[in-house]
Amino acid sequence: MKARVHVMLKNGVLDPQGEAVRHALGALGFDGVNGVRQGKVIELDLADGTSEADVTQMCEKLLANTVIESYSVEIG
Amino acid sequence: MKARVHVMLKNGVLDPQGEAVRHALGALGFDGVNGVRQGKVIELDLADGTSEADVTQMCEKLLANTVIESYSVEIG
Repeated sequence: MKARVHVMLKNGVLDPQGEAVRHALGALGFDGVNGVRQGKVIELDLADGTSEADVTQMCEKLLANTVIESYSVEIG
Repeated sequence: MKARVHVMLKNGVLDPQGEAVRHALGALGFDGVNGVRQGKVIELDLADGTSEADVTQMCEKLLANTVIESYSVEIG
C-alpha cells in the first residue's frame, strides 16, 4: 500500500523558503502571486496491513516537527 | 485562488533524503517500510484569473528542475 504525507509549516511560522520562491516568481515576471508556502511531501511504500495509525505514529515521531509543522496523511 | 504543486524526483533518480527517512523509520522500529520518496509541495496563493498554464510556466521556469524532477499541478 501507498501513503502520502504532507508536512507544512504551521500558519504564523515564518517560511523563508516560500518567501524566496515568491520573490523569484515576481522577478521572473509572474504577477499576482500573493503568497507561497513550501512544505514536504513524503511518499511511503508500505507493507500491506500497515494502518493509518502507524503512519500517524511515523509522523509524530520522525516525519514532522509538530511544534512548528502540521501534517496530513493520505492512504492509497 | 489557490494552487498546489507537487515536485518529486523522477523514478530512477537516486533520492538520498528518502533513503535516510527509510533507514530512520526502520531504526525507530517501524517495519514494512519498503520505500520512501521525498519531494516538495508548494502552495501558491494566486490572484484570481491566473490560469493553470501560468502555473505550469512557473513550474517549468522555477519550481521544478525538469531534468530530474517531475511536477503535478492541482488548482483550487
